[in-house]
Amino acid sequence: MKALENKDIYLKYIDCLNSRRLDDIAEFAHDELTYNRKLITLKDYKDMLAENISDIPDLYFNIDLLVVNEETVACRLKFDCTPVEEFMGIRVNGKKVSFTEHVFYKLKDKKIIEVWSLIDKDAIRSQVSS
Amino acid sequence: MKALENKDIYLKYIDCLNSRRLDDIAEFAHDELTYNRKLITLKDYKDMLAENISDIPDLYFNIDLLVVNEETVACRLKFDCTPVEEFMGIRVNGKKVSFTEHVFYKLKDKKIIEVWSLIDKDAIRSQVSS
Repeated sequence: MKALENKDIYLKYIDCLNSRRLDDIAEFAHDELTYNRKLITLKDYKDMLAENISDIPDLYFNIDLLVVNEETVACRLKFDCTPVEEFMGIRVNGKKVSFTEHVFYKLKDKKIIEVWSLIDKDAIRSQVSS
Repeated sequence: MKALENKDIYLKYIDCLNSRRLDDIAEFAHDELTYNRKLITLKDYKDMLAENISDIPDLYFNIDLLVVNEETVACRLKFDCTPVEEFMGIRVNGKKVSFTEHVFYKLKDKKIIEVWSLIDKDAIRSQVSS
């Protein structure tokens, strides 16, 4: 079952992120991919993930919901973390925040070729301003 | 295949919304359900959808990505529409906007029992302010 295989690939990808093995990211994503419709390189993708980890040293990807078919992975990710200063343009300044990401990935030849991500920035904003 | 059945139910649900048959919503959702972790009644849900349609008379749910398994539906929805005045606290005032929603639904006994929705409100804000 290709869906089961895609699920396994995705779980390994998330483990790669959570164990900070960003040098292994090429195992999971193509040399060129789109992120929210923008064409980027694998290096851009790795740099973005490295920046997220730099912004949020305790960043941990918790899978809340995972739905997979033959070519697409849909995941609801939950984060409980502490951005040191700014994250996605929001000044969090060391406050602990909880938020979710709803993200879809298109896989091709067992690697990510397209990502569509929505992060609940309003949830972060409301926790920072409260 | 239960996944295929759930896909069929979801397509009928979206058709119900797009053809404005809100009185049929009870076919697709339980008497009580959670919406972004908040417990609501079927009437609350119907009222919310009716308010969305009132805010956006040309609201149309376009399925961009759909991933379904035995108990969960994940959908990326695309909207190109014209909120008359305010939508989700944003004053759109008749401007045409494009945005997406990434939404997960848990189904139980062929009906929606949980909804987790993220709407790209930042995309709306940026189009309104541009």
